[in-house]
Amino acid sequence: MIKVGIIGSTGYAGAELVRLLLAHPEVRICWYGSRSYIDKKYAQVYQNMFQLVEDVCRDDNMAELAREADVIFTATPQGLCASLVNEEILSQVKIIDLSAEFRIKDVAVYEKWYGMTHPCPQYLPEAVYGLCEVNREKIPGARILANPGCYPTCSTLSVYPLVKEGILDPATIIIDAKSGTSGAGRGAKVDNLYCEVNENIKAYGVASHRHTPEIEEQLSYAAGEPVLLNFTPHLVPMNRGILVTAYASLKKQVCEEQVLEIYDHYYRKERFVRLLEPGACPQTRWVEGSNYVDVNFKLDPRTNRVIMMGAMDNLVKGAAGQAVQNMNLMFGLPEEMGLELVPLFP
Amino acid sequence: MIKVGIIGSTGYAGAELVRLLLAHPEVRICWYGSRSYIDKKYAQVYQNMFQLVEDVCRDDNMAELAREADVIFTATPQGLCASLVNEEILSQVKIIDLSAEFRIKDVAVYEKWYGMTHPCPQYLPEAVYGLCEVNREKIPGARILANPGCYPTCSTLSVYPLVKEGILDPATIIIDAKSGTSGAGRGAKVDNLYCEVNENIKAYGVASHRHTPEIEEQLSYAAGEPVLLNFTPHLVPMNRGILVTAYASLKKQVCEEQVLEIYDHYYRKERFVRLLEPGACPQTRWVEGSNYVDVNFKLDPRTNRVIMMGAMDNLVKGAAGQAVQNMNLMFGLPEEMGLELVPLFP
Amino acid sequence: MIKVGIIGSTGYAGAELVRLLLAHPEVRICWYGSRSYIDKKYAQVYQNMFQLVEDVCRDDNMAELAREADVIFTATPQGLCASLVNEEILSQVKIIDLSAEFRIKDVAVYEKWYGMTHPCPQYLPEAVYGLCEVNREKIPGARILANPGCYPTCSTLSVYPLVKEGILDPATIIIDAKSGTSGAGRGAKVDNLYCEVNENIKAYGVASHRHTPEIEEQLSYAAGEPVLLNFTPHLVPMNRGILVTAYASLKKQVCEEQVLEIYDHYYRKERFVRLLEPGACPQTRWVEGSNYVDVNFKLDPRTNRVIMMGAMDNLVKGAAGQAVQNMNLMFGLPEEMGLELVPLFP
Amino acid sequence: MIKVGIIGSTGYAGAELVRLLLAHPEVRICWYGSRSYIDKKYAQVYQNMFQLVEDVCRDDNMAELAREADVIFTATPQGLCASLVNEEILSQVKIIDLSAEFRIKDVAVYEKWYGMTHPCPQYLPEAVYGLCEVNREKIPGARILANPGCYPTCSTLSVYPLVKEGILDPATIIIDAKSGTSGAGRGAKVDNLYCEVNENIKAYGVASHRHTPEIEEQLSYAAGEPVLLNFTPHLVPMNRGILVTAYASLKKQVCEEQVLEIYDHYYRKERFVRLLEPGACPQTRWVEGSNYVDVNFKLDPRTNRVIMMGAMDNLVKGAAGQAVQNMNLMFGLPEEMGLELVPLFP
Repeated sequence: MIKVGIIGSTGYAGAELVRLLLAHPEVRICWYGSRSYIDKKYAQVYQNMFQLVEDVCRDDNMAELAREADVIFTATPQGLCASLVNEEILSQVKIIDLSAEFRIKDVAVYEKWYGMTHPCPQYLPEAVYGLCEVNREKIPGARILANPGCYPTCSTLSVYPLVKEGILDPATIIIDAKSGTSGAGRGAKVDNLYCEVNENIKAYGVASHRHTPEIEEQLSYAAGEPVLLNFTPHLVPMNRGILVTAYASLKKQVCEEQVLEIYDHYYRKERFVRLLEPGACPQTRWVEGSNYVDVNFKLDPRTNRVIMMGAMDNLVKGAAGQAVQNMNLMFGLPEEMGLELVPLFP
Repeated sequence: MIKVGIIGSTGYAGAELVRLLLAHPEVRICWYGSRSYIDKKYAQVYQNMFQLVEDVCRDDNMAELAREADVIFTATPQGLCASLVNEEILSQVKIIDLSAEFRIKDVAVYEKWYGMTHPCPQYLPEAVYGLCEVNREKIPGARILANPGCYPTCSTLSVYPLVKEGILDPATIIIDAKSGTSGAGRGAKVDNLYCEVNENIKAYGVASHRHTPEIEEQLSYAAGEPVLLNFTPHLVPMNRGILVTAYASLKKQVCEEQVLEIYDHYYRKERFVRLLEPGACPQTRWVEGSNYVDVNFKLDPRTNRVIMMGAMDNLVKGAAGQAVQNMNLMFGLPEEMGLELVPLFP
Repeated sequence: MIKVGIIGSTGYAGAELVRLLLAHPEVRICWYGSRSYIDKKYAQVYQNMFQLVEDVCRDDNMAELAREADVIFTATPQGLCASLVNEEILSQVKIIDLSAEFRIKDVAVYEKWYGMTHPCPQYLPEAVYGLCEVNREKIPGARILANPGCYPTCSTLSVYPLVKEGILDPATIIIDAKSGTSGAGRGAKVDNLYCEVNENIKAYGVASHRHTPEIEEQLSYAAGEPVLLNFTPHLVPMNRGILVTAYASLKKQVCEEQVLEIYDHYYRKERFVRLLEPGACPQTRWVEGSNYVDVNFKLDPRTNRVIMMGAMDNLVKGAAGQAVQNMNLMFGLPEEMGLELVPLFP
Repeated sequence: MIKVGIIGSTGYAGAELVRLLLAHPEVRICWYGSRSYIDKKYAQVYQNMFQLVEDVCRDDNMAELAREADVIFTATPQGLCASLVNEEILSQVKIIDLSAEFRIKDVAVYEKWYGMTHPCPQYLPEAVYGLCEVNREKIPGARILANPGCYPTCSTLSVYPLVKEGILDPATIIIDAKSGTSGAGRGAKVDNLYCEVNENIKAYGVASHRHTPEIEEQLSYAAGEPVLLNFTPHLVPMNRGILVTAYASLKKQVCEEQVLEIYDHYYRKERFVRLLEPGACPQTRWVEGSNYVDVNFKLDPRTNRVIMMGAMDNLVKGAAGQAVQNMNLMFGLPEEMGLELVPLFP
């Protein structure tokens, strides 16, 4: 039985971790961390957990937690996790960090986009970026696992095969992404009130969103050259889900079948990536509550572009589910354990 | 392994049965019935099932299905199930009927409220009303299981203990219920279009909804006398969930503790009924995707009334989940098998 | 031209006042009060007003405002308006108060339900309760106009005629109300976040909501005797709208036609109350953005009860629209001036 | 008084025409056309119009209607309007066509994208494309006014100034658009049911949507050369609103101020286009119910692209409002008459 501690268990991603881990046969949650609700019963913060979780929320105490747990999930704001990590902690426990601190290898890039000094750049080299479908072989040995961001997961998986195979011109990539509101977190802000989000759609972080360099880094590895792209997120009036619509110019003359083959080659054996039937567009409703990413593409011969699409649940594959997938790999369990969730519809 | 056939597998309740049964360790679905989509791949009707279900939809053929299956779930419009049942079928297979034909014992009451002739009243006496929390002991031996309606499940469970214990005056019961839109089914009607339901709430079937006599019958058993009540359903702009707010005058002077004790007595051992902490109101979001009914109450000494509240997922405990719960009892399995679902939030 | 000052112009009700008053031919807004956004451009707080309002928000300065304005609308939290009112102010300006301080005549009742000391009970006797359809003749002479609460407006207008005519037993009245989320205001609270409200319905303030005594007082006047009732509000995932479903036992044997006649008698000449055609249920979508209250009823001979229903836009007839209606009467303008709004659908 | 006939008055765009024209001081609607609801009271089809419209719906009879009306709005499916038009009709009445038949000058392009034979190509040359902000001077004399499509209106106005001024490379334009569900019409289809649209976002018509050539044609005029582009619409769970996010590479080195000046030059005097303050993103909630298009842009020096954004209400500026704006111009009325609508929020 793996003993799990969660720092930040009362955010939406933390709560999703609780939902998934409660159903995981090899896990016991031993620490429900939450600075905002110390000593409050977890089930009073999330009433869905009534009679399922009897624990109270605990303050962050990394040292004590490292002694009690085998793995710590940190689902906290920027800066917290990294500031708590040190050699002693890492000698006792594995860290799966759902924040962004360990995702970007170049500390200068991190500090520029995030506007803060990195608290422990010395751990960047060893941290492993946990996008299993791309990076699987490096994950089992990781001490610090950087769980990918929600937008980067969906964006990268939608575009990756065609970049890797050199089909498209990386300099032409444009990613237009749409996210449900749980991605904005549970903080009490006017902008996230029901009446402000409902019956509305808007772009935000245009040409400046922090997930941009993370996507660029991953696609640069695939392209074998630095990639700069446009990434525009939008806020959609729904709870869960991310949809990515990505555009790029083709570098080679390809037909639909060839592109299909490339996607199929990369994803045929992937448990959590579904290449849809030709013509079917990914929709967030078809993956809700599950760890799937649905992807597909369309060629436009008129403009010589390919439109690549991906849909996933931002809280599952985009956060907690992917974190559990990584945990499974790190602990030698079957990758899909606890994640064989049938999407909920409607 | 129990072989299951579903007639009406492409309605919302049928699709929820598929979701639950796919994760049930002792079940294999052998028949995806759907008159509307014969020969179409099930996963093309419900794209969430892509790569999970490879079957195509099949026409209704009760005789053939009875030979293939151990149990048939009928999630069809009124009249269909009962018209297909006969002694030969029943000698081969168990029937769990999610429509209303076998729920009301008095055929005259049925025909008055449903405005149709009952196709096989001879089976009414043996049919068992599958509200496990009230009727558990009769379920295992049933050949025909009448799965309760969504509103009656939530209404009856919210009110039942106080009626049974004679605390309230049954002649004063008023049930004001609110339902998500999946309860209206997947039929293409203008009234159920997105723009008609969104940003709206309305009552419907006022003083005439068909679930009224079903609730009355169950509460009459509890009261030991005929109960007439007002039941008003409302359509709410959300996918899933039923909330019941019920009112009744108290017959006896009782304090909160006494009422608490009564609810606790009836539901303490129930796996799927959660009596919330004092003061907490049931909310549909806390049960979504699960088989729970959350209940609670409030006394109003000013008016000498009790307000009883219940929340559940109409597609799970109000339809497919309860049907699986009944199946488990009918086949000697643990009642909660395949139903230990953590509610999904947000 | 009437010069209008708004205290609390950046709440949802205040913003709706701005929307309505901008289109009012006899009004000029001279003061956009907002403690939270002092010196900020109003159109930056409400971007819909871009190019329509050039003013900046101003702090509360009742003395200065009284000199500049002919009428002050106070759309503020409890306690603020009343604490600012005095004889000098009232000699200069009329007050239309959208908070609850002047709605309840009995100061003890106010203080019990609102849990605060009334700051100026001496003005309660002269304050006029501005439910035009009931109280029209008293409004023109008012110095302090207590604008009715949203729930009380819809509840009272739905039930009033039958109470007044002695058709129903006032001791049996139960009001089950449902409101859109704008009624909860623009304050940044976790409970009002998009993901908390969306896909959910809940009751709140059960047997304790502050609008209860306000409804009781108005219906007591109609009944000629003290009325106690149950009032249960619910939060619905939509922006605007209140739906009231009210129940009462009939005191007299009446047929549908007689009840119809009573409603028709009271509302035939009312510009803003629409008695729907027999059988049509009020729905919030049909009144959105307008000053209408749609009402109707259904008799249930089985239980000898009448179900009374009403729908309105909580921000218009339930707040800003009714306030403008009152202003029109107070300033001798046609009651409907600036309020001839066609409901927006969808 | 202008006498107006509406063919297709019971679709969402038709109903919005009714809402706007009821408040227009120089218009009287004399014909509520609706094939689906012949002889039914209009207010029974749209209950918001109860007591506001007493008319019944009438069948299409172009000849009779042409004698009764001064102008006919056709808000009907493809093909209907054009099939009814002839010289005699046009000698009696002006036509404002909200369908697509007269929008595209090249009949071959129309027939390719719409998959149907054009019923009266002889009228294409004289039909005027009614995008007032671009085409104002041609509108007064028009007999046949082609009211622009919803997506083309928002797309063209967002991109037009920079194409016209030669700032961007037209071959690189990508338009990613998002629409509320009223754009899908009031037809009873499973895909538009509440539970199918709610909690979902999807792309549709990828690389094949019919509005593509309409946008291309307009931007080609601006560019002075043929423009091919990618246009991807998405369905968003909200009633109203279109958001356009458009991308293009810059052809010239420009700074923000220069681009600002260009937009300002084109839109400074436009009553219905609002160039937002620098940094503010257009959002659909800020224009709901109004005839505004809010536009803005962001330069990305990293990729040398400009991101252009526009938001509008698809039923107002995208359909009925723009049609009224055109009618005003055609009848010599002030362009903004009946359209000075303050956006409704929330």
